[in-house]
Amino acid sequence: PVRNLLEELRSADIAHLLESTPPRVRNVIWQLLDKEREGDVLQHLNDEIRQTFIEQMQPQELANALADLDTDDVVDILGDLSQNISNQVLRLLDEQNRAQIEHALSYPEDSAGGLMNIDTIMIRPRVSVEVVLRYLRIRGNMPPNTDHLYVVDSRDVLVGSVPISAILTCDPDTPITQIVDRETFTIPVDMPETEVAQIFERHDLVSAPVLDENGRLLGRITIDDVVDVIREEADHSLMSMAGLDELEDTFGKIAATAKKRAIWLGINLLTVILAALVIGLFEKTIAQVTLLAVLLPIVPSMGGIAGTQTLTLVIRGMSLGHIGEGNKGYLLKKELAVSIINGILWALVIAALVYGYSYYKESGINHLHLAITIGGAMLFNLVTGVVSGAVLPLFLKKINIDPAIAGGVVLTTVTDVAGFFALLGLATLFFA
Amino acid sequence: PVRNLLEELRSADIAHLLESTPPRVRNVIWQLLDKEREGDVLQHLNDEIRQTFIEQMQPQELANALADLDTDDVVDILGDLSQNISNQVLRLLDEQNRAQIEHALSYPEDSAGGLMNIDTIMIRPRVSVEVVLRYLRIRGNMPPNTDHLYVVDSRDVLVGSVPISAILTCDPDTPITQIVDRETFTIPVDMPETEVAQIFERHDLVSAPVLDENGRLLGRITIDDVVDVIREEADHSLMSMAGLDELEDTFGKIAATAKKRAIWLGINLLTVILAALVIGLFEKTIAQVTLLAVLLPIVPSMGGIAGTQTLTLVIRGMSLGHIGEGNKGYLLKKELAVSIINGILWALVIAALVYGYSYYKESGINHLHLAITIGGAMLFNLVTGVVSGAVLPLFLKKINIDPAIAGGVVLTTVTDVAGFFALLGLATLFFA
Ligand SMILES: [Mg+2]
Ligand SMILES: [Mg+2]
Ligand SMILES: [Mg+2]
Ligand SMILES: [Mg+2]
Ligand SMILES: [Mg+2]
Ligand SMILES: [Mg+2]
Ligand SMILES: [Mg+2]
Ligand SMILES: [Mg+2]
Ligand SMILES: [Mg+2]
Ligand SMILES: [Mg+2]
Ligand SMILES: [Mg+2]
Ligand SMILES: [Mg+2]
Ligand SMILES: [Mg+2]
Repeated sequence: PVRNLLEELRSADIAHLLESTPPRVRNVIWQLLDKEREGDVLQHLNDEIRQTFIEQMQPQELANALADLDTDDVVDILGDLSQNISNQVLRLLDEQNRAQIEHALSYPEDSAGGLMNIDTIMIRPRVSVEVVLRYLRIRGNMPPNTDHLYVVDSRDVLVGSVPISAILTCDPDTPITQIVDRETFTIPVDMPETEVAQIFERHDLVSAPVLDENGRLLGRITIDDVVDVIREEADHSLMSMAGLDELEDTFGKIAATAKKRAIWLGINLLTVILAALVIGLFEKTIAQVTLLAVLLPIVPSMGGIAGTQTLTLVIRGMSLGHIGEGNKGYLLKKELAVSIINGILWALVIAALVYGYSYYKESGINHLHLAITIGGAMLFNLVTGVVSGAVLPLFLKKINIDPAIAGGVVLTTVTDVAGFFALLGLATLFFA
Repeated sequence: PVRNLLEELRSADIAHLLESTPPRVRNVIWQLLDKEREGDVLQHLNDEIRQTFIEQMQPQELANALADLDTDDVVDILGDLSQNISNQVLRLLDEQNRAQIEHALSYPEDSAGGLMNIDTIMIRPRVSVEVVLRYLRIRGNMPPNTDHLYVVDSRDVLVGSVPISAILTCDPDTPITQIVDRETFTIPVDMPETEVAQIFERHDLVSAPVLDENGRLLGRITIDDVVDVIREEADHSLMSMAGLDELEDTFGKIAATAKKRAIWLGINLLTVILAALVIGLFEKTIAQVTLLAVLLPIVPSMGGIAGTQTLTLVIRGMSLGHIGEGNKGYLLKKELAVSIINGILWALVIAALVYGYSYYKESGINHLHLAITIGGAMLFNLVTGVVSGAVLPLFLKKINIDPAIAGGVVLTTVTDVAGFFALLGLATLFFA
């Protein structure tokens, strides 16, 4: 019965089902799946989950599964295998396929070359719409998401593109030269995939031609794969800020999950121990004024929150391509101004509250000095947090560290250390 | 010179430029812009920035700008105006346009109805490909992103769709009934836009027909607008977790930005004061063992980090449609198991470190008891954090609160309060 159910589902839905089930059920479903559909389902699966299946498959089985897939998907899957197994599978593919795939494998996976497919329909400039129509009827089908035909010269250099809507709506006698769009968006083969995604998103493209450095047509990129890039990139920012991988399997195995999480917790433990050591420097002050222990979490927390807001805004702005040399000065000034305004506001609020609490508790220490201590630390730490949140991602990117992964950890370390220093340092000046 | 530059840019690029500049320059660019291009640029702008421009425009100017836009974009823009101004603009549109837009405005903005356009090409089932080709040539053009023609009966009920690739590749004598796809994906007009996005993403669609409850064709949704939904939704999770709006203007004005940020900081101040009051309950214990003040940040921080990982994973899983009734039991068990493993691991590590630190500092208190205190609190709080991270988003969604907005605040409140309680409570048992 489950097998019948599977037969009625589309491959993309089976992939979604596999992604939504715990590992044990997942394996059962995979076993029940028709061998002939394996390739089609693999192509739709999240890379991390796919990995667990392709590791179990024999090279011959894998080669069969890959035979009918698009080059971009084969490249994506082979890229996840060890060099050794990947070569074994390649050798089992038929010759033409193999040459194309070896060529595509030479481009980085996260570049236009790794994203492109070779299923372009090419036409010559000196024909008419009539000729193209006859050619298409002989061809008998068109690759999915074909919205343009590409006009190339005898050396495969791209002349321009012809929307298939023009082929449909023009008089058959129209020469192709008359309807070719020479200003079409083109993608250099070495463009990073995130830039490709920005071009598709901004200009509402369905497909775009990929060219080598001499302007020759190599293949095309289609919106469905760009959507996957957009999704992965957006997930990357969200998940990385929590120390997770964007492909993290929601229903992963316990041991593997625990191991990955442990690393992130270990890094965090180091940073919070650093913050604790700062408190340790002021143990004597706290022994004199134990009320300080009660106030400890407030200042670092507010600095961390304010800094995280700026950090998130800047990381998103960077990924949307909004932030560059010309405007980061304004951005920094704006964030600084915002942090000063909020710093003064919340410094006054917390100072008043602490003054009241100290008075009510009859704490026996100078209420005003205590209020100034926490208010001053608050203002200082909010500004520190926000400035760090603005500067850190730009700096991390410059030294080639991913701000989404490292930004949050570094930021909260800064705001914790600065917050404890400011609060306990001021307190030591007043009360020691 | 700037004006010349603007003339050479595409509207989408001008919109991107506006989004990447500080408010003052932004207004200058807008003033320099050709009146005739205003509508086209507005359609590509982030809603929040667009808002600042349309507020300055007269109803007549706005009506002119909207005249050439697609229904979905007009509806999106009118939805951001006050009822009063929106009506004024509507009255200035020509009659046919107005009727269509009033109809489209009746659907919620975040439903398929708010996303759809009415530029479908409809054909009858009993014609041949030849007839369709002749019709398209008379039409002379096709709406952007048209990859299917829709076959409807005399009551506008959708029969199926015909890929335009079939029109191009089939023999002209082929009857439409022979190439119509009757299993085509259809979108009910009241489907939430996030579900629409999942369907497009999973099945690699370029466009899909929107139907009313009787199966009649109302319009169609295209991938370019779905990409915007995917981007906004992904941005929403990321930005909300930092208490920001997904449309937050990277270069917004200082006063407006400060006000919005202040609210989030205020909420956070309340939660951290709650945590501080918990410490206040144990002031006497701290006065006896000041070393506890040094250890204070460690346990809540680790619980917060572990909980945020689970929270983020669950929020992402929910937005990908991976988590449902059938698998949330496994998810909870898995996360619980992971948290116990990591809880034991890091409890032992921190206990050993604190034992050593206490010994080295000759703190004069029972080192073993102190180690047990922090280790026990660590285990307890990691489990608390992870369980909260798994349960909270599901619970918040059930009571219709957005987990991306509220989840993080509630979670860290829980881990702060639980962490301080556990550490200082255990300490009080041992040392008071
Ligand atoms: Mg992939
Ligand atoms: Mg891969
Ligand atoms: Mg990738
Ligand atoms: Mg790829
Ligand atoms: Mg777009
Ligand atoms: Mg593809
Ligand atoms: Mg694909
Ligand atoms: Mg919009
Ligand atoms: Mg709107
Ligand atoms: Mg929307
Ligand atoms: Mg897809
Ligand atoms: Mg549209
Ligand atoms: Mg649009």
